Amino acid sequence: MTLAARTPLYLDDLQVGQIFRGQDRVLVDAAAIKAYARQFDPQPFHLDETAAAGTIFGGLAASGWHTASITMRLMAIDGPPLAGGIVGGSLDELRWPKPVRPGDTLRIECEILEVIPSKSRPEQGRVKMRTTTFNQHDEPVQMIVANLVVPRRRQAAVG
Amino acid sequence: MTLAARTPLYLDDLQVGQIFRGQDRVLVDAAAIKAYARQFDPQPFHLDETAAAGTIFGGLAASGWHTASITMRLMAIDGPPLAGGIVGGSLDELRWPKPVRPGDTLRIECEILEVIPSKSRPEQGRVKMRTTTFNQHDEPVQMIVANLVVPRRRQAAVG
Repeated sequence: MTLAARTPLYLDDLQVGQIFRGQDRVLVDAAAIKAYARQFDPQPFHLDETAAAGTIFGGLAASGWHTASITMRLMAIDGPPLAGGIVGGSLDELRWPKPVRPGDTLRIECEILEVIPSKSRPEQGRVKMRTTTFNQHDEPVQMIVANLVVPRRRQAAVG
Repeated sequence: MTLAARTPLYLDDLQVGQIFRGQDRVLVDAAAIKAYARQFDPQPFHLDETAAAGTIFGGLAASGWHTASITMRLMAIDGPPLAGGIVGGSLDELRWPKPVRPGDTLRIECEILEVIPSKSRPEQGRVKMRTTTFNQHDEPVQMIVANLVVPRRRQAAVG
C-alpha cells in the first residue's frame, strides 16, 4: 500500500498485515558513514577504509546505529503517517543481517503485526510494527520490531 | 569492576555476571537533541520546546535513537575493551523506560549475561551483554541486550 497523501492514521485505521512501502531512498556515502562514526561509534571499521580492511567487516561499513538512525528518518518522513507521530517505548528485536557499505541506498517497508486497543486508556492503543530496511539490491540490512503508542479516533459521546 | 587500563579483552577473559561501570558522562543539551533530530528524527517533540509541550512527551525529549547512539559512543570509548571492538549482529531487546531531557547526563553499565564459544569457528564466540544507560538520577533511560562477536585468545599449537 502506498499513501498518496499524508493523512494521519489512527489506531482504528490500522489492520494486521498492512504494508507501507517507503518511496524515499537515502544514499549512504563514505563521508556520512565517517561523520556518524566520529560522533557516535568511533571504531576503526566505521572510520577509515584502510583500518577497516583488516577487521571482521573487511572494509568500511556503517555503524548499525547509523543504519537505525537513517531508518528512523525514513519512518518519520516516509513511513505510515501515524497520528501523534512514531512513538515507541521498546523494540522486541533488532537485527543487522548485512553491513551497509559506502554507496548503498536505503529504503524501508513497514508491516503491521499487531493492533491492540488499550483497556486502561481508551484514547490509545499499541501497535507492533516490523520495519525492514533494504539496500539497492533488495537485501535486508536491518529488521526491527517496534512497539508503538498510537492514538484512537475521538469517539462520539454516548448518552 | 572498573578497568584501570584498556587492555583488550578476549572471550576467554569474560565471565557471566561481570559488570563494567563506565566512568564517562555525556551531557545531552537541547542543542544536541535538536541537531540529532533534524538529521535523523524530525518530529516535533524532538525539535522544538513549544511544539513538544502539546505532545505525549509534554516537553522536549531526545529521540530514543539519539540515546542509543550516545550509548554506542559510551560503549566504544568507555565500555569493556573487547578485542576486535564492539561488534553486534543483533539485539534481543531495546527499551526506553524514561525520556532523556535537556540537561541530562548519561553513563552506562554493561553486564555479561552469556559467554558462548563457537563450535564451528574456534577463533571466536558470542557474548550476550546488557547495557543500561542511566541519567544523573541513576534512573535507567535505556536497556539493551546485544549479541556480540568476540575473538578468542590464540591457542598454543598442539603436537
